[in-house]
Amino acid sequence: MITYDVNQKRVGKVCKKLREYLDWTQNSVFEGEITTGTLNKCLAELHKIINVEEDSIYLYRVSNPRNIKKDIIGVEKSPFDIFL
Amino acid sequence: MITYDVNQKRVGKVCKKLREYLDWTQNSVFEGEITTGTLNKCLAELHKIINVEEDSIYLYRVSNPRNIKKDIIGVEKSPFDIFL
Repeated sequence: MITYDVNQKRVGKVCKKLREYLDWTQNSVFEGEITTGTLNKCLAELHKIINVEEDSIYLYRVSNPRNIKKDIIGVEKSPFDIFL
Repeated sequence: MITYDVNQKRVGKVCKKLREYLDWTQNSVFEGEITTGTLNKCLAELHKIINVEEDSIYLYRVSNPRNIKKDIIGVEKSPFDIFL
């Protein structure tokens, strides 16, 4: 799971990059199952986009998906909503 | 960990409520250690604030904090930054 808080100028690029590797969940939150190798590739690419002195990327890793429980209160935002 | 995506009109109230129970991390992300009882109280209160047909609250629960690893790339946003 990755959440980001980056300068408006770079939101589009960061979002596009994350979409290549993970599923968009909500606002600035992405999640998905990913191998360590692919994750490292994703992070290396993000590094090239962000300004590490201004932006931040938060990475939450759970090795076994059974160790995290997700509940949604209210509406579930579908990744397709943004195209409507 | 809780992330929210609510109508602009209710962001302030939701944020204020979450701040009573959890620590603000970044953007619309809050996290913290909380008992099931306190969490339920927090969720019941959020229910009164949000419009369940329009807003969404995503709740991620990890029973053992050791099961989740957090890494920050770039700057760590301090909860005090917003007061500067």
